[in-house]
Parts: sequence; C-alpha cells; structure tokens
Amino acid sequence: MVLTDKLITYFNKIMPLTDSEAQAIADSVCIGKYKNGDLLLKEGQIASECYFVLKGCVRQYYMIDGEEKTSNFYTEEQWVVSFTSFIQQQPADHYLECIEDTILVVGNEQREEDMYRANSKFETISRMVLEKIISEQQALQARYVTDTPEQRYLHLLQSNPQLVQRVPLYQLASYIGVKPESLSRIRKRITDRSRTTKV
Amino acid sequence: MVLTDKLITYFNKIMPLTDSEAQAIADSVCIGKYKNGDLLLKEGQIASECYFVLKGCVRQYYMIDGEEKTSNFYTEEQWVVSFTSFIQQQPADHYLECIEDTILVVGNEQREEDMYRANSKFETISRMVLEKIISEQQALQARYVTDTPEQRYLHLLQSNPQLVQRVPLYQLASYIGVKPESLSRIRKRITDRSRTTKV
Repeated sequence: MVLTDKLITYFNKIMPLTDSEAQAIADSVCIGKYKNGDLLLKEGQIASECYFVLKGCVRQYYMIDGEEKTSNFYTEEQWVVSFTSFIQQQPADHYLECIEDTILVVGNEQREEDMYRANSKFETISRMVLEKIISEQQALQARYVTDTPEQRYLHLLQSNPQLVQRVPLYQLASYIGVKPESLSRIRKRITDRSRTTKV
Repeated sequence: MVLTDKLITYFNKIMPLTDSEAQAIADSVCIGKYKNGDLLLKEGQIASECYFVLKGCVRQYYMIDGEEKTSNFYTEEQWVVSFTSFIQQQPADHYLECIEDTILVVGNEQREEDMYRANSKFETISRMVLEKIISEQQALQARYVTDTPEQRYLHLLQSNPQLVQRVPLYQLASYIGVKPESLSRIRKRITDRSRTTKV
C-alpha cells in the first residue's frame, strides 16, 4: 500500500472523494520520516507544521520544573497539531517528540490554503476533521474530571491496548496524572483482581 | 446594542465581513432565552443544537454515581457544542445547564448547512472558530496534566476572575478536580499568603 493511501482512506471515510480529488491529495502531500527521539517541536518555537500519523507514535509533553509531564500520545490515523502555536503563531509551551521511528504526513499553512483554493470540498473535509478532533479532545478532558487515575488507565487499556505496550511506564503515569510508583500499584491491583476473578 | 451584533463582532474579529454578509448572519440567527436551572441537554439525549453565549453561563457536567462532576463552564463569547453527540448523533454522556439567566444564539445542522451553501466564506469562518475552540480545549486539558489543583484555581482566578464570583463553590471544586473542602483550604492558603505578602 502506498503511504499516502492511508490518508486518502481516512478522508474517504469522512467524505467520499472522486479519483481526481484523491489524486490531488496524493500529489500535494509531503511525507516525513523521523527517528525515535526526534523532536518535531520544542518549547519556545513557533509551530510551522501540522502532522498526520501514518506509522509510529508522537508524544506531547510539557517541561515543568525539570520534570516531563506527558499530555498526549498520537498514533496511527491521528492528527498532531499544536493549535495555539500553529494557528496563532505563538511560541509553543510544550514539546512534540517521536517516541518510535515514525512516518508522518507533513502539512503547513501554505499547502493547506492551496488545497482549499483548489477545491472548497477540502475545506469542508478539514472542518469535519476538526470536529472529530474536538470530539476526541472533549472526551479526553472530561475523563480528567470524571475518572480516577485507575479508571483512566483502565479506559486506556480498553480503548488503545497497544499504546500501553508501546510507551514507557513513566510517560503513561504522567499522562494519567500519577507518579510512576502509583501506576505500578494500579497495575498490580488490576492484575490481582483479574487473577482473583479467574480463580 | 442589538443582541446579534455581539456574534457579528465576534466573527468580524476572525474574518472581516461585508455589510451584506453581516446582514445574512443577523437574518438567519435564532436567539434563545433561558432561565437559571434550565437544561439544554440531558444525558442520553441526542444534541440537535449548538450555542453561542451572548449573556449568562452554561455548565457542562457528568453524573457519576449520583454525584455531579463539572467539566466546563461557558460564558460570554464562548461556544457550547457537545461535539460527539451533535456531530456523530450519539446519546450525550453529560448535561448542559444554564446556571444563570442566559441568552444564547441557537444553531442547528440545517441552519449551519444553509449558511455554508449561501456563502463558502462562512465555512472558512466556521473552520477558524473550530481551530480556536481546539486551541482552548488543548490548553484546558494540558492544565490537568501540568498543574496542581491550586495552580488550576490560581489560573482561573487570573484568566476568568468573574467566573469565580458567579459559580457555586462545589461546582468550581469539581471543575478543578478536588472536593469542596479541599477548595476551601486552597482558598484559605491563597488568602493567608496574600495577607502575609501585604504585611
């Protein structure tokens, strides 16, 4: 499968594309390949690019008093956009790091505007993608209010079981809002419970 | 000032409108007036409307084991949209309640589509509004990861001092992720510190 096909399949699910529209996207898309550990954005930089993950994982984190606080992970078929920095051209307050070898579609403002000018349908698709992103973002934020850290971890296990395998414990802990030792205890409780249930 | 002027002023800041475009918006807009305590959406309902606050305050909350968990407050010049329910037509997992007498612009899918068909510029504006919403939503979510409850409360005092006066303590407490008695302690610490600084 050609790499760009993944993006076209994703758009097709949102709004069916004609062959020439799909071709227009394929022709305009830039693909970037990154190594584990590469930084896409640093605190203080102004984001000039946005990304769609074809393969790999990008972590968003804040550096608070010398400690990394992970606020999000983006994997296959997710958008990575630091909106405040990218849209309002403000210095970023966080980092974006590839935590695996990662392949991304790389967008920028110019390419985005060119697509909208070429066909207004792309702007409609963009609006629908944004609605999808907000929907996910609202659900994520709500979980910080409604769920305990253990519930957030269980939700992650259920909704994105692969991620739990792919990401170091200290990053997962910070993402669900606890210290690594608390996450170890949470994991042990869950394992003990599942053993008890099986017996 | 005519009520709809507030919405037009808001759009004008995003992208300048011609007189006829402003008129088209004014002509199509529906205004709703609600009483303190009115529910705009209940858990289990499918959201058919979205809102822009002209005056008042809307609270979003979840009912978890008989306890209200407040996840957001929306005041003047903010959009109230339960995206997952409104866009994907899924039953809402939360409530939207007016916690003051409130005046809202009331949108629905049909009115939105009609506007886009009438003038594609409205779709561009909509896209830019969505980018602004995501930007705010990302910042809000990040604060659950980077900040302590006390820091979240201090941020609220700074960014939206009026809200702290307008909202009951137990709702604010749940919003910053603590029990009401913890918020009382946080408030006392802040008052004590400011007294010490002044002496």
